[in-house]
Amino acid sequence: MDFESFFRSELDGLRREGRYRVFADLERQVGRFPTATYHGESGPRDVTVWCSNDYLGMGQHPKVLAAMHQALDGSGAGAGGTRNIGGTNHYHVLLERELADLHGKEAALIFNSGYMANWAALSTLAARIPGCIVLTDALNHASMIEGIRHSRVEKHIFAHNDPADLRRKLAALDPSRPKLIAFESVYSMDGDIAPIAEFCDIAEEFGAMTYCDEVHAVGLYGPRGGGVSEREGLTDRLTLIQGTLAKAYGVIGGYVAGSAALCDFIRSFASGFIFSSSLPPAVAAGAIAAIAHLKESPAERERQQDRVQALRRKLDAAGIPHLENPSHIVPVMVGEAKACKAISDELLARFDIYVQPINYPTVPRGTERLRITPSPFHSDADIDALVAALGAIWARDGLKRAA
Amino acid sequence: MDFESFFRSELDGLRREGRYRVFADLERQVGRFPTATYHGESGPRDVTVWCSNDYLGMGQHPKVLAAMHQALDGSGAGAGGTRNIGGTNHYHVLLERELADLHGKEAALIFNSGYMANWAALSTLAARIPGCIVLTDALNHASMIEGIRHSRVEKHIFAHNDPADLRRKLAALDPSRPKLIAFESVYSMDGDIAPIAEFCDIAEEFGAMTYCDEVHAVGLYGPRGGGVSEREGLTDRLTLIQGTLAKAYGVIGGYVAGSAALCDFIRSFASGFIFSSSLPPAVAAGAIAAIAHLKESPAERERQQDRVQALRRKLDAAGIPHLENPSHIVPVMVGEAKACKAISDELLARFDIYVQPINYPTVPRGTERLRITPSPFHSDADIDALVAALGAIWARDGLKRAA
Repeated sequence: MDFESFFRSELDGLRREGRYRVFADLERQVGRFPTATYHGESGPRDVTVWCSNDYLGMGQHPKVLAAMHQALDGSGAGAGGTRNIGGTNHYHVLLERELADLHGKEAALIFNSGYMANWAALSTLAARIPGCIVLTDALNHASMIEGIRHSRVEKHIFAHNDPADLRRKLAALDPSRPKLIAFESVYSMDGDIAPIAEFCDIAEEFGAMTYCDEVHAVGLYGPRGGGVSEREGLTDRLTLIQGTLAKAYGVIGGYVAGSAALCDFIRSFASGFIFSSSLPPAVAAGAIAAIAHLKESPAERERQQDRVQALRRKLDAAGIPHLENPSHIVPVMVGEAKACKAISDELLARFDIYVQPINYPTVPRGTERLRITPSPFHSDADIDALVAALGAIWARDGLKRAA
Repeated sequence: MDFESFFRSELDGLRREGRYRVFADLERQVGRFPTATYHGESGPRDVTVWCSNDYLGMGQHPKVLAAMHQALDGSGAGAGGTRNIGGTNHYHVLLERELADLHGKEAALIFNSGYMANWAALSTLAARIPGCIVLTDALNHASMIEGIRHSRVEKHIFAHNDPADLRRKLAALDPSRPKLIAFESVYSMDGDIAPIAEFCDIAEEFGAMTYCDEVHAVGLYGPRGGGVSEREGLTDRLTLIQGTLAKAYGVIGGYVAGSAALCDFIRSFASGFIFSSSLPPAVAAGAIAAIAHLKESPAERERQQDRVQALRRKLDAAGIPHLENPSHIVPVMVGEAKACKAISDELLARFDIYVQPINYPTVPRGTERLRITPSPFHSDADIDALVAALGAIWARDGLKRAA
């Protein structure tokens, strides 16, 4: 077989469909968020980033940077090993305590990414609990899907955010077998929020574990940033809460929080945890600072919500169609891969605005979109410039307007 | 089902077998490697770390720390998104160029860990190349095993480092089907080295791809730290070289290097790459500095090898049994899980020496060991103290001596 030709022909297929990904080479600038230097073909220039998942700009927060500088000078660049073999740093221990406290759980366990946290925790739980059946929301993240797939256990997909369908599926299963229900709180691409209380009612009725991915909610919802589950007073009813340090907390890494025995079980049996070098001390120190700050300070969350509402109002006034939802995510709907990419390219080239096109397989075909994430640092002028640019493109191309 | 009781009883099982892992809470200290502060039950105290995978101490190198401080102040704590959605930083681009150059390949692709690099690259290649059959060394790392398992393709395990067995297995397969041969250069636990040239001969004879994991070799072997494949002039003959930034380079992250089409294919189809937030800019900047330094400077490698030989000589003189091998890894063999853990505990409690016990499933039962990794920073006095402590324990307990 000619491997090179095969790779090239598969890549050509992506190009034909308009979903070949070109990464924008960016250099974010501390003190100037959401501005970044774009390293394009015609040399570097300033652009406004409108699609960052550093939702609150904590990646430039002085407390976070100071904690990272200090840990770097104190303990060095990397951890030096896996958690078990020389790679547990005191900052890891403190971070896991901070996360357990954030979610009102006995314990927490950190991973190198949210993807790894989901993949490792779900595959380990499902595969190791004898006879386990997984019930998984139809729109769960790729990391959850792959983790469940890796376990090779029986699984049932329930309709997205649909407690009645979950209940129906559970009722049809052997009552004696253990069950795990996996869902997210805030769904990243549509920005809708799960009916967590109803899911918990059903889980308790059937004696199932609940696994809730709060990666797009931690730091952003709840009085201390404990996520939608904290806001709704539901943390005690969830068996496991999974989250990330890479979005609202502005650094990198993922985690799970739950009972001491649950976290110890995953710690002891998850291959992806055991055999990975652990997070650098400076990363853990930065995450601790970000979590601690957002536990005390609602200002960033309030300002973010204010910016989200301001953008929505101006999009509505301009007739630009966006998906209504109760979160901070503003999906401007295009509905076709090539058009979506063309708009994104034009925003960057003509307007110095960077919003990545979101195409299949991240979202279903026909729902291609620009996923916009306003931060506390987007000014009124930034919003006006974005809406004016979209308005100009929508008018010129005769794109579909909002009702 | 009572999930809590189940978790606790599984953990009790590990304790009964003597393989329940207790993480040593360490705080490494820049400028004082291999000394670290151990946060034990009786308060913090200094210990000498003898099992770090920061093999050359690059985690405290001034150039690495300076590059990280600068990137932290320039671009902030995290990358702010996945590579495709706002999370490609200019440092990522530069790091991938540096890695491609290191291995003399057209391109490279970075991941959040070496585990993820192996899991994502192998599962993607095996699953996406139609009809692919994987041939995998019997002692390959967990991340490779899980990646291959995830692909669900036909696989054949060949005897460890055994070209004749590989050849036999290949000859029995349908010649028309594409094949991938996966192996490591330096095996982490025994420290032995693969017959890469013979594997390449066989791969070429049968038209198979070669996938070589060099995580315990990059930075350490070859005139520029390009690994065993560089030392032996074999980089051109390997289809893909996988490596880590978390060991000799002292930071965190993993990567693959290969042809432009190969890297672009993995970039475009690997779920674990696409859906993970990317490495912080400071991590990428630190890795660039470490790689660039070790391309030019053989001093760290030479001093490490000198320390390895010094330790071996003194272990031999004291009759402490260790596995001979051509690498930098010194496995002191114990052969039983509880004894191995007890020796490690005593080294820490009585002698302020930290070497983690390595038990099943990391190594086969009956081959439990202390895996010792001398660095350029271990002094003669450190070596003498380690050998004296082992000698005292060996004598008191009547443990088996080397012949």
